[in-house]
Amino acid sequence: MDRRSFLKTSALGGTAAAAASTLAAPAVAQGKITWRMVTTWPKNFPGLGTGARRVAERITAATDGALTVQLFSAGEMVPAMQSIDAVIDGSAEMMHAASYYWQNKSTGLSFFTGVPFGMTPSEHSAWVRHLGGQEVWDEIYDQFGLQGFMSGSTGTQAGGWFSKELTGLADLQGLRFRTPGFGGQVWQKLGASVTNLAAGDIFQALQSGALDAAEFVGPYNDLALGFYQVRKHYYTSSFVEPGLATEVVVDKAKYSALPSNLQAIVRDVCQAEYDNVGAEFYANDPRALATLVNDHGVIAHASFPDDILEAGAKASVEVLNAIRDGGDPLTKKAGDSFVAALNILQTRTLGTDLTYMQARQKYLKL
Amino acid sequence: MDRRSFLKTSALGGTAAAAASTLAAPAVAQGKITWRMVTTWPKNFPGLGTGARRVAERITAATDGALTVQLFSAGEMVPAMQSIDAVIDGSAEMMHAASYYWQNKSTGLSFFTGVPFGMTPSEHSAWVRHLGGQEVWDEIYDQFGLQGFMSGSTGTQAGGWFSKELTGLADLQGLRFRTPGFGGQVWQKLGASVTNLAAGDIFQALQSGALDAAEFVGPYNDLALGFYQVRKHYYTSSFVEPGLATEVVVDKAKYSALPSNLQAIVRDVCQAEYDNVGAEFYANDPRALATLVNDHGVIAHASFPDDILEAGAKASVEVLNAIRDGGDPLTKKAGDSFVAALNILQTRTLGTDLTYMQARQKYLKL
Repeated sequence: MDRRSFLKTSALGGTAAAAASTLAAPAVAQGKITWRMVTTWPKNFPGLGTGARRVAERITAATDGALTVQLFSAGEMVPAMQSIDAVIDGSAEMMHAASYYWQNKSTGLSFFTGVPFGMTPSEHSAWVRHLGGQEVWDEIYDQFGLQGFMSGSTGTQAGGWFSKELTGLADLQGLRFRTPGFGGQVWQKLGASVTNLAAGDIFQALQSGALDAAEFVGPYNDLALGFYQVRKHYYTSSFVEPGLATEVVVDKAKYSALPSNLQAIVRDVCQAEYDNVGAEFYANDPRALATLVNDHGVIAHASFPDDILEAGAKASVEVLNAIRDGGDPLTKKAGDSFVAALNILQTRTLGTDLTYMQARQKYLKL
Repeated sequence: MDRRSFLKTSALGGTAAAAASTLAAPAVAQGKITWRMVTTWPKNFPGLGTGARRVAERITAATDGALTVQLFSAGEMVPAMQSIDAVIDGSAEMMHAASYYWQNKSTGLSFFTGVPFGMTPSEHSAWVRHLGGQEVWDEIYDQFGLQGFMSGSTGTQAGGWFSKELTGLADLQGLRFRTPGFGGQVWQKLGASVTNLAAGDIFQALQSGALDAAEFVGPYNDLALGFYQVRKHYYTSSFVEPGLATEVVVDKAKYSALPSNLQAIVRDVCQAEYDNVGAEFYANDPRALATLVNDHGVIAHASFPDDILEAGAKASVEVLNAIRDGGDPLTKKAGDSFVAALNILQTRTLGTDLTYMQARQKYLKL
């Protein structure tokens, strides 16, 4: 039995608790703080909802309940896309989400989730933690009384579900493709007719033919949604979502008022889950893909045709520049920091990581 | 002022502390627990010593000193390579090290640091955390009353420093090359005359000509050691150390006796530092490499010649099989688990991550 449980039931408890509460504020001894965490994910949604749940559980466990985090999945307290306003208006103390959902607050937030042809998860963490990214992010959220922490990563996502193998840009003209956000803007520039649909509506739209193609996350999530029943050609590498980082965002004033050890625990748990969510996707995506291919007849294609990649890179830079140069000084600052960091970091990715992976692909026979 | 500091100086402190100490054991309220952490790294050695220091600081901060970790760098309490025995004999409660240093305890520990042509950091974390790796690691360390946690990663290391560009296997015959461990065994099979030297002795041996070539970690560490002054050809991608994970190892009985929230904090901080150390290397390696090339005239080569890579892959599998089939059942179990996981995980690396990196390399013009 831990000390707190004991105090509740002990005859001595009242005395000790009263003594402690006289002593210092704010302090753990004053009792349990409960924070409500809203999320943009369905309950236990693979990798994202599970990551949010673990953040809540791990903070609660590491603080021995001194900071107890109550989880509210999408829609349980507010609709997913109102999560940020719930934290701003005090209905919740924190949220688990993706920064690029909050374009209406600042387009600069995009860079802290990911942009087309942008950073891999390793690059993203290096930028945010060691090359100035967190500082710009803090400036942006500070305008709203908020503080953000990276809290998870899907890794490089899959490219989407199509009815046939793509031969090149010509196949994209007028293609009715479900792909949201900046990725959608890129595909639109390539000629696709882009729509956004909620996760729950995609399957039916594919089945009815209202959609030609759709992309969601990757095999771990896509398997559960059953897309393989209505589309067989699966592109396993997205160039518009090379990494998607999730965030934990807290009310900055309430966070700053926590004892410093509880602040540290929130930070530490978020960073631990950045690794853990990435590892969860990395472990489950290839197993789900094997199921899709072996049990459901899906045909996996690693790479889109070259002319799509080439045009995609050009369109991605246009989208990036449009975000960066939209007129908001902090968005410009975030974009400049992102591009400067990517220019440095990609030299390591190409000269070290990629080189190794290519050598292993070519020569390792286990 | 935190509660503990206040108690020490307050007139009420004695009463409250006495009341608390009557209540429960073990508990934070009984007072500060101090753990000694020995390490295999020099003090503040980039990425490795700094990672160890942060583990100590972050545990201490997150527990508000309830678990205070005292850091002993290599040689401060015991020589680096006696760290594990210091934890076993109780001179220290924990260590920060690399599992493959403890071959004399179990060769199976190699798999938890990394092996030639083995896992990338993302694959390694996915295996240990979500595909059964931690469970086998626990079985191995359990034999010694220990418990291990991943606590950092160098990422894919550099291949080494040479006096000229390598043209193929012929250049390796008799090459006096400083490269330790399993990587050294692989290079030996390729014809090199392999030696191990402590970090501090490498520079002089290169300068005097006692060594032809050397590899250490990567640009972030190698720049500080000045190898560029005596060798100009730098291979930036190692196939024998595609990832090197560090570990925190605790005395299992003492760890199990901690209150569960302190146990959680140790786990969470180690996982947070797995990401953080990786990000530290990722941010600093390419900047150090730019300094080496631009300021010191170093010639960087991404890839070794194909015949070296091909023979290296073959030799790596031989080394891996020799470790796995050496007769120790737990080593066999660890090796089988590692190979099974790598076979699954590399399908994601190749079909998703590598594909994206290649597309970006080819087409992105920022």
